[in-house]
Amino acid sequence: MATFGDIGLAAAINILTALIFLLAFAFLRLQPINDRVYFPKWYIMGQRTSPTDSGAFVRKFVNLDCRSYLKFLNWVPDALKMSQSELIEHAGLDSAVYLRIYLLGLKIFVPIFLITWAVLIPVNFTNNTLELSNETYSEIDKLSISNIPHGSPRLWAHVAVAYVVTIWTCFMLKKEYETVANMRFYFLQSEDHRPDQFTVLVKNIPPDAHESVSDIVQNFFLVNHHDNYLTHQVICNANKLAKLVKKRQKKQNWLDYYQIKYSKNPSKRPLMKTGFWGLWGKKVDGIEHHETEIKKLTDEIAEERKNVLNNPKAILPAAFVSFKTRWGAAVCAQTQQVRNPTLWLTEWAPEPRDVYWKNLAIPYVSLTIRKVIMGIAFFFLTFFYVVPIAFVQSLANIEGIEKAVPFLKPIINVKFIKSFIQGFLPGIVLKIFLKLLPKLLMMMSKFEGFVSISRLERRSASRYYLFKFVNVFLGSIIAGAAFEQLNTFLNQPANKIPETIGIAIPMKATFFITYIMVDGWSGTAGEILRLKRLIIYHLKNIFLVKTERDRERAMYPGSIGFNTKEPQIQFYYLIGLVYAVVTPLLIPFILVFFALAFMVYRHQIINVYNPKYESRAAFWPDVHGRVITALIISQVVLMGLLSTKHAVASTPVLLALPILTIGFNIYCKGRFEPAFTRYPLQEAMNKDTLDLVRKPMPNLKGYLQNAYIHPVFKDDGSDDHYDDGTVIVPTKRQSRRNTPEPSKTSGGSVSSIPEIIEEKHKP
Amino acid sequence: MATFGDIGLAAAINILTALIFLLAFAFLRLQPINDRVYFPKWYIMGQRTSPTDSGAFVRKFVNLDCRSYLKFLNWVPDALKMSQSELIEHAGLDSAVYLRIYLLGLKIFVPIFLITWAVLIPVNFTNNTLELSNETYSEIDKLSISNIPHGSPRLWAHVAVAYVVTIWTCFMLKKEYETVANMRFYFLQSEDHRPDQFTVLVKNIPPDAHESVSDIVQNFFLVNHHDNYLTHQVICNANKLAKLVKKRQKKQNWLDYYQIKYSKNPSKRPLMKTGFWGLWGKKVDGIEHHETEIKKLTDEIAEERKNVLNNPKAILPAAFVSFKTRWGAAVCAQTQQVRNPTLWLTEWAPEPRDVYWKNLAIPYVSLTIRKVIMGIAFFFLTFFYVVPIAFVQSLANIEGIEKAVPFLKPIINVKFIKSFIQGFLPGIVLKIFLKLLPKLLMMMSKFEGFVSISRLERRSASRYYLFKFVNVFLGSIIAGAAFEQLNTFLNQPANKIPETIGIAIPMKATFFITYIMVDGWSGTAGEILRLKRLIIYHLKNIFLVKTERDRERAMYPGSIGFNTKEPQIQFYYLIGLVYAVVTPLLIPFILVFFALAFMVYRHQIINVYNPKYESRAAFWPDVHGRVITALIISQVVLMGLLSTKHAVASTPVLLALPILTIGFNIYCKGRFEPAFTRYPLQEAMNKDTLDLVRKPMPNLKGYLQNAYIHPVFKDDGSDDHYDDGTVIVPTKRQSRRNTPEPSKTSGGSVSSIPEIIEEKHKP
Repeated sequence: MATFGDIGLAAAINILTALIFLLAFAFLRLQPINDRVYFPKWYIMGQRTSPTDSGAFVRKFVNLDCRSYLKFLNWVPDALKMSQSELIEHAGLDSAVYLRIYLLGLKIFVPIFLITWAVLIPVNFTNNTLELSNETYSEIDKLSISNIPHGSPRLWAHVAVAYVVTIWTCFMLKKEYETVANMRFYFLQSEDHRPDQFTVLVKNIPPDAHESVSDIVQNFFLVNHHDNYLTHQVICNANKLAKLVKKRQKKQNWLDYYQIKYSKNPSKRPLMKTGFWGLWGKKVDGIEHHETEIKKLTDEIAEERKNVLNNPKAILPAAFVSFKTRWGAAVCAQTQQVRNPTLWLTEWAPEPRDVYWKNLAIPYVSLTIRKVIMGIAFFFLTFFYVVPIAFVQSLANIEGIEKAVPFLKPIINVKFIKSFIQGFLPGIVLKIFLKLLPKLLMMMSKFEGFVSISRLERRSASRYYLFKFVNVFLGSIIAGAAFEQLNTFLNQPANKIPETIGIAIPMKATFFITYIMVDGWSGTAGEILRLKRLIIYHLKNIFLVKTERDRERAMYPGSIGFNTKEPQIQFYYLIGLVYAVVTPLLIPFILVFFALAFMVYRHQIINVYNPKYESRAAFWPDVHGRVITALIISQVVLMGLLSTKHAVASTPVLLALPILTIGFNIYCKGRFEPAFTRYPLQEAMNKDTLDLVRKPMPNLKGYLQNAYIHPVFKDDGSDDHYDDGTVIVPTKRQSRRNTPEPSKTSGGSVSSIPEIIEEKHKP
Repeated sequence: MATFGDIGLAAAINILTALIFLLAFAFLRLQPINDRVYFPKWYIMGQRTSPTDSGAFVRKFVNLDCRSYLKFLNWVPDALKMSQSELIEHAGLDSAVYLRIYLLGLKIFVPIFLITWAVLIPVNFTNNTLELSNETYSEIDKLSISNIPHGSPRLWAHVAVAYVVTIWTCFMLKKEYETVANMRFYFLQSEDHRPDQFTVLVKNIPPDAHESVSDIVQNFFLVNHHDNYLTHQVICNANKLAKLVKKRQKKQNWLDYYQIKYSKNPSKRPLMKTGFWGLWGKKVDGIEHHETEIKKLTDEIAEERKNVLNNPKAILPAAFVSFKTRWGAAVCAQTQQVRNPTLWLTEWAPEPRDVYWKNLAIPYVSLTIRKVIMGIAFFFLTFFYVVPIAFVQSLANIEGIEKAVPFLKPIINVKFIKSFIQGFLPGIVLKIFLKLLPKLLMMMSKFEGFVSISRLERRSASRYYLFKFVNVFLGSIIAGAAFEQLNTFLNQPANKIPETIGIAIPMKATFFITYIMVDGWSGTAGEILRLKRLIIYHLKNIFLVKTERDRERAMYPGSIGFNTKEPQIQFYYLIGLVYAVVTPLLIPFILVFFALAFMVYRHQIINVYNPKYESRAAFWPDVHGRVITALIISQVVLMGLLSTKHAVASTPVLLALPILTIGFNIYCKGRFEPAFTRYPLQEAMNKDTLDLVRKPMPNLKGYLQNAYIHPVFKDDGSDDHYDDGTVIVPTKRQSRRNTPEPSKTSGGSVSSIPEIIEEKHKP
């Protein structure tokens, strides 16, 4: 049993760690040499240039202005200063709404904190059940529901608070859902012309032996949407081409490097070895060698390109179809086209940046099979991945270690180390395990065949949450491998499961408090430091950066990482809601997490992250759904707990809670979810009409014709100055190639980093 | 334990009953006096006139032609002769597809019968487990899986057959789903102009203080569907008006009666008493009295009518909106109109006949609440309605009766009576109980707020099936009240539930065989006899029929009654699939049911039933879903049974079956279900284009303007010759008022009976 001392020590360690991280950050961010690590977003937006361009040599690397150090914490007000509308303009709606998840946490848990501490802590503390019992207990347990005697009428206080918690959470959830839905509509309404407003992704176009895909598409839409159809773009399988282009780009980098070297020292032609990594082999002239290589690749690319464009087999049975009006696109996206609902599948096209090209050609039947396979795979992953975690958790048990390695006993029994092991280790080990998971889940989502990156991330997020729920939450509570849990659940009567969990819940409060501190406090503070990125950037800068283009590329802004970060927040919602009534002591720890994370991520979103896409907050239904899930779990657990407390009368009263919550969720689903999946015709018509009056687009067809071209053709095109001189090289202002007329309000109008970097350094 | 003798006796009784029914039918249908009972459909179609119109007096009532009696069974080939396309033309697609459910039963169970009898019966019979055991057993058990020793490798034969059954069933289901979907599309494509093709039902129109609903609707659709909008009809709350019209109709009948009486005997004015049922009170002249009454009511109706049409409060926030093209309607029905997805709800309008007017004005929030309330109510209904059934079932237990009423012992022990009680009573008592249920379920569906009669019936059907599953299937197997079952299930480990059922299943085979014979054989044979309808018709004819109109009304054709008949068929699917592997002996009984029912219902659909609406086979997804459910239940039960047989290795092999079945169902849902809920744009466009070329409708607007008028206004209108002379009284050919240009292929073009009857007797 962990005592207040253990918790205190863990808290001290974690607060110290967090403080060190924050101080280090405050110091490092002021150094010009780190500028590209801590403010990449501004570089990408073109509002900040390299500090190495001007000033004294030393000043390029170290900040000597002492006054600036005094204000080392001023990133906090800076981060909070920007208004929401500015934030949307700066970083996009996705980011702005993402921050609202943290804010929602505060909105939900601050009142819960107040009421639970005002009501439940006194109610719990003024008993002496634990003192009278023979079991060992800690001070924390004295403040929890464990201290209430069986069948005590005081338990009604907990039931009442459970009602307050549910009602308050649902109320806030509804308000937030409404706000986000309105923000989304406002955003859609205020955006300028964007290709995805006019475009529908059509999949599973039935093949025809006598006609090309392009002709089929054109005929079909000319007939069935004759008033609205404008143009279309077929989709090619350009994977090989993409590979070649990537290869040429690499060679180009080397060429740049040798040319810089030569220009610095024109007396000596730069030599290189042709072998592995330039370590051995024949010595040749670097510039000449790369120039011939690039020429060769360029020819190959030209050929492959011709092949892709002319070979009917390279054309996938999918197309982006654009319409004259948003109304036409909205109609096409929401309707069924032909008898066979697995053909001519239409859906609202994702942003050009958001398209996951590889999955565009997966046929319908295969999709179902893939889903089933991934469902089964995920089941096994969830229930059997846990073997190592269970092993570590058994290690974290002092007695277990003492038994396993008796010679360590003297060391372990040192109070400090004992506390450390008990308070720190389980959390951090778990964390490392979980770090490996998201990539695997992302791969699974990709295999399932979603066609946009945003949906891939959302799918991964929900799986990651499920995994965390089974393996971290249930795993920690029932303390056994997940497959053992599975066995337990199957062999237990259905109504005993909540009891099993309910009994274990109060005893695990300490573990979760530690977990919050390690993962939520130190982890979040560590996020702002970007230590890994800092090191990688400087290492790259020293050893690998050959050209300015490389430096740009070394500046990795990253993005929020919805697939890992959102399940993390949700996990705190889960713990918070479960423990709100059981061990209110835990709530302030959650509050600190939400507040800290809100500030840190607001800062990061403003200064660092560069979103890969703009899904216009399409993830909110997932966020809402998971909070609801957490709420229902907390209610069921409380029911189980109270039934072991012999508070029989309370069970039917509590039974109403999950039923009400599910009803509330059904209501919300019907009321708000369509806002995130459909484009209402009235909205589309409004926007069409406004456009017609205010700023009609003279050449919409030309604008849409090239909006959804496989990125490789664009990259290819932009590098085509090696090919011939006729290709128009875009200027920097036009660099947002996929979104030719970026709206001011959409932070999403900035293209992905590599493209920007390439173009900045175009001759 | 029931023996072969018991079964034989029950079979003999039921076959005899069925034969008596069939012979009685064969005899009675030949009597001209019963013609309207056994061939009402032809009367309604106008292809048969009253035999009382011509011929000798006796011949009007009794068929004296002896030769016709020799061919008394020729209704069977008659019923089978009509081809499917003729049947669709004659009775509508709903009826034709409904018959396919029986046919599907034969298609599924004939091969299952062959394989199980060829493989499993020998495998089961060549053991002597039961002989060696000390338990009592019957010959039936010797043929069932009970006769296989524990852990025997012979059980693999059952596993293999379970796979064959699943694969075959899924294969047939898929084929059938495809066929029905194509039939539906073909039907839609071949139909002529019908108002529901062009019309969308719009619900939850937001109110506006300054504008009428009609103006709001017009403005909204002129803006947001400006190319397609044609016209609309608002919906009035005309419940009071409907009541008044009904009252006047009654008086009109009396007036007719007195006028006939007077015309027969012009010397005497018919007198009547004004009191209750004409039994006492002041004597007045019947004709005069009713003429004044009708005049009074007509005035009242005119006033109420004005009130309904002018009072904005009587206008409901819903409307039928019609479009210029089917394409426009298809688009509107499938898209979301405004930001708030609970406003301007659009759905494909049901047929005018199919509309359930009362539910059109229920607001969205209330709908959710109603659903929740009905969900809870149904739960309690299912689990507590069973108390009396359990009581009766305990009666059906011989030992129970002997204990309860020991003085009856000598009677009960008579072999014949014992067999009768064991074989006959439980089934018939259950049947009576279930007869009470459908009306209640229909009321529940109405409360839930569905807007078409077809959906009300489908909802009731699925609830009825669920009820039967819990109370008849589980109730008979676990032999206890449903709420006790609930308790058992909650207190049992999840994996023990299939075992509990699995053990009981083979022992209950006799019960279900008896059930099939009573309900399926005698019941179905009784259906063709229409004994209840025959008696009622003749009673009415003798005592109540005052006018020809009354006689028409006494001829009650009825309809299939999807809400009760379909769950019945599904129940046989369930029993058949569950017992296919366990007790193959049961299958032939099911086959007899399907074959008999197919013939009987085919005959009834051709000669008797007059469908209330044409939903174009919209019920098929429900049918498919329930067969899938039955299949999964059968697989789970088999798993449970085999796990008690210590065939451990078979469990994982069997586990694949439900997973595959669920996967198959998901596939079918995606592939075929949209055909039943959406109108693909290509189909709509095709039909529009064809119409334009072949037979354009000159005045579509005029045609659609009055298509969806509350029936009371039409009834009112048709009786308006009392009001003034300006109303056009429809001729008989135009009597299909709701479907002004009835397609030849649509049997549904015949209006509902009361209307027809009224019009036939228009002056």
